[in-house]
Amino acid sequence: MAKLSEIGEEALVEQLTSGLKSGRNVIAGAGQDDCAVIRNPDAPEKLTLLKTDCIVEGVHYLPETPPSKVGWKAMARAVSDIAAMGGVPEQALVTIVIQPDREVAYVRSLYKGLERAARDHNISIVGGETSSCASAAMISVSLTGHVEKSACTRRNGGRPGDTLYVTGQLGGSLGGRHLTFRPRLAEARWLTTHFNVRAMLDLSDGLASDLPCLAKCSATGFQIKPERLPRHRGCDLKQATSDGEDYELLFAMGPRDSRRLSATWPKKFPKLALTKIGYLTKPGVAEGLDPGGWNHFTS
Amino acid sequence: MAKLSEIGEEALVEQLTSGLKSGRNVIAGAGQDDCAVIRNPDAPEKLTLLKTDCIVEGVHYLPETPPSKVGWKAMARAVSDIAAMGGVPEQALVTIVIQPDREVAYVRSLYKGLERAARDHNISIVGGETSSCASAAMISVSLTGHVEKSACTRRNGGRPGDTLYVTGQLGGSLGGRHLTFRPRLAEARWLTTHFNVRAMLDLSDGLASDLPCLAKCSATGFQIKPERLPRHRGCDLKQATSDGEDYELLFAMGPRDSRRLSATWPKKFPKLALTKIGYLTKPGVAEGLDPGGWNHFTS
Repeated sequence: MAKLSEIGEEALVEQLTSGLKSGRNVIAGAGQDDCAVIRNPDAPEKLTLLKTDCIVEGVHYLPETPPSKVGWKAMARAVSDIAAMGGVPEQALVTIVIQPDREVAYVRSLYKGLERAARDHNISIVGGETSSCASAAMISVSLTGHVEKSACTRRNGGRPGDTLYVTGQLGGSLGGRHLTFRPRLAEARWLTTHFNVRAMLDLSDGLASDLPCLAKCSATGFQIKPERLPRHRGCDLKQATSDGEDYELLFAMGPRDSRRLSATWPKKFPKLALTKIGYLTKPGVAEGLDPGGWNHFTS
Repeated sequence: MAKLSEIGEEALVEQLTSGLKSGRNVIAGAGQDDCAVIRNPDAPEKLTLLKTDCIVEGVHYLPETPPSKVGWKAMARAVSDIAAMGGVPEQALVTIVIQPDREVAYVRSLYKGLERAARDHNISIVGGETSSCASAAMISVSLTGHVEKSACTRRNGGRPGDTLYVTGQLGGSLGGRHLTFRPRLAEARWLTTHFNVRAMLDLSDGLASDLPCLAKCSATGFQIKPERLPRHRGCDLKQATSDGEDYELLFAMGPRDSRRLSATWPKKFPKLALTKIGYLTKPGVAEGLDPGGWNHFTS
């Protein structure tokens, strides 16, 4: 009998979700994109986005990590997924499962971090759940959001010849940025409402894992120039592609929009780098990148 | 520095949620009812319901509990909360945090239970999250739903003189029913669309904890006849009021509707008992019931 550690997260999710039946309002269901995408029966031009994400003590943060940063991270991760669809977050539900011998002050500080991240993105925390557990704590955030049909950006719309971009710098997130990153919500909204972004995701597992995923969803290959990858100071190529938790945007854009973007981005976001890292190609090509990245259960 | 075990769940939730700021679309936010209630900007007569709930191995089920029942319970608990508002569930997000050395077959069976409960209530599982943990597993379910403004039933609408009802029998849930119960979704929908149900909740912590809660939310007292409480076979009064996890409906109804209900319920739901257990009264009265029920962190 196979154990989870033998098959890994991706195969498990595939097994669990492959037979799922969804109602007719579900456009993208479990395992298909950064968020679930639901038709809004009361507003045909607007889609509902749903996302859940959790972080576990000892896996995504340490017992000694400042709790306000833990809370920030828990909320910001889910916001980053709403951003990756071109959406706007709305309401959050928060579950905290924690040891009974933790101090009340710890949980209050953790919640302050959640609240700060919520407030910064106009999110209302409208419900939650607390429960006790024996060992490692866990914080789960479910987010609702919306996106206009015209702005909704999936992973599967890329085409051969599209230019690939990443925002910011990659690698070395564990040095601290994984606790303090700002989800690229404003940037993603601007991109998806002003350009035809054909495919997008947020880099959570690392480019070496997330780019092949975007290409696979779009039924394309890819070709990147490793020397062009924007790396955080002190990071080598492997760290930049495999550390994960960058929470930067990776997206594909057609040639015409691409020229317009190059001209306007620096004026709109002068402090955030935007880098052309390569192109989508016909399927079967995977140039300039070793596979890798983070995998729960096997890593 | 106080520990969670010293202050208990209720005080913790109070501390965490008391300062929360919500957007103007939020009608009921964190800690205020069975579900969060959100205005739907695209359909003024329809409200959105949001609920999250989790179960923890060793707290809500045992390592040896059949996993398909664990999955059923995880989903059915959240459905019960949507029912308690008079609502209809729609989409679910499922998070499973589990030990890497568990067998794949265990998780697949657990998911089958989640799916069965979803299918039985026309819910689409549209997303989720899996992560590893060191010890006890945890399953969290977030549910969206909707309810017509006219059917939405809060905890806070009860008035002195209202009749109090419970469905089914109480107590002894740990004998097995806590894993196999059917959420009273159809019953609650029928009640809230045909009658003016003034206040309602689902009995999860036990009548001794949940009835004082309903009365407090409604700014009333209560008076019940202990000898009238419908008890499961073999259960004494303490078990019937304090075991918890009954997942039956407790609701309050005005005198006129109450007479009509008595005449019609037995025809509509001949297999499910409906019992008048007493009345809401003016504030300050708490007759026929010892306080108690389940409390995380301190129990």
